[in-house]
Amino acid sequence: MKLPVAIQRLINSLEKLPGIGPKTAQRLTFYLLNVPQTELDTFGQAVSGLKKNTHICPLCFNVDELEPCSICQDRSRNQTVICVIEQPLDILAIEKTEAFNGLYHVLGGVIDPLNNIGPDELHINELPLRLKNSQVKEVILATNPTMEGEATAMYLQKLINEKLGTAIKLTRIGRGLPTGADLEYADAATLLKALEGRREY
Amino acid sequence: MKLPVAIQRLINSLEKLPGIGPKTAQRLTFYLLNVPQTELDTFGQAVSGLKKNTHICPLCFNVDELEPCSICQDRSRNQTVICVIEQPLDILAIEKTEAFNGLYHVLGGVIDPLNNIGPDELHINELPLRLKNSQVKEVILATNPTMEGEATAMYLQKLINEKLGTAIKLTRIGRGLPTGADLEYADAATLLKALEGRREY
Repeated sequence: MKLPVAIQRLINSLEKLPGIGPKTAQRLTFYLLNVPQTELDTFGQAVSGLKKNTHICPLCFNVDELEPCSICQDRSRNQTVICVIEQPLDILAIEKTEAFNGLYHVLGGVIDPLNNIGPDELHINELPLRLKNSQVKEVILATNPTMEGEATAMYLQKLINEKLGTAIKLTRIGRGLPTGADLEYADAATLLKALEGRREY
Repeated sequence: MKLPVAIQRLINSLEKLPGIGPKTAQRLTFYLLNVPQTELDTFGQAVSGLKKNTHICPLCFNVDELEPCSICQDRSRNQTVICVIEQPLDILAIEKTEAFNGLYHVLGGVIDPLNNIGPDELHINELPLRLKNSQVKEVILATNPTMEGEATAMYLQKLINEKLGTAIKLTRIGRGLPTGADLEYADAATLLKALEGRREY
């Protein structure tokens, strides 16, 4: 049996999404067949209109309705600290802590030679340019603690030191045991970082 | 930080899908931000157009472009056997075996009192009506071997015997070990069914 064209077309679109395989795409499509048409219209318009009212901030490369983005425009934020992250979603996670009031710089990914992603594919070279004539005193390197994230942080450190000397303080987000963790089940790499990163109590 | 309206709108739509939580919805939305607009348009149109060219077959309740569906219209298929399944996707699975050439009857779910789904919410009462003046000689009950699927199969058995006597042969899909399984790891319920369902060799 061949599936109806309209159904196959949606399965094809859903299959392209990361983490959604052919079976899940089928399941979601047949679920949507039971959803009212008005909801399908809302969903469809949300998809096609996604990028119509969003811009990439020319300063920090965050995604926002304003250009520059609402964070870069907010003069009440601390203009002397920049937190470097991989993705716009990381901003959301950090903002939720309410512990950071500085600016951001979105790299748009990490250096990943296996997937042909070098510094030029990311917003890396824009960072020293942005720092040059600014009031920034500290750059927090908050790429993920993965192999690629660490390599990117090291690359940024070298680049900033090369271009701007050591005038700007570079820090790396803290490493150690996450809240609620169990020492017994922690992996060796995490425990090592937790010991190295111990603080006076 | 508040997310842009267009982004939040798509997250809201994706979150409603089964098996997609708020985090996955965020991740998918930010992934789609990097997808070309033409692809977003294709996706959006596939969503809103999903139900525009598909009909529910008035005979077997399958979803298809034709009405009645292509299976019901195909006179070369065996008109004396009907396979009763839960969902249209089950037809796809059975057709793939190429071992069944009869007709189908889609229930649209299973009897599930905990979720307020009784026989009247499904296409159950339509089945004896369909069988009454037909050439059907056998009904294969192919609901899933779950608690609800078994209960639905039993309900159908009782209903058909009540309305049509024992003129129609009722069968249940075979139970036992799936291909590639390991006896050692099989659960007791499956092994019990495999012993009960043993066949001469």
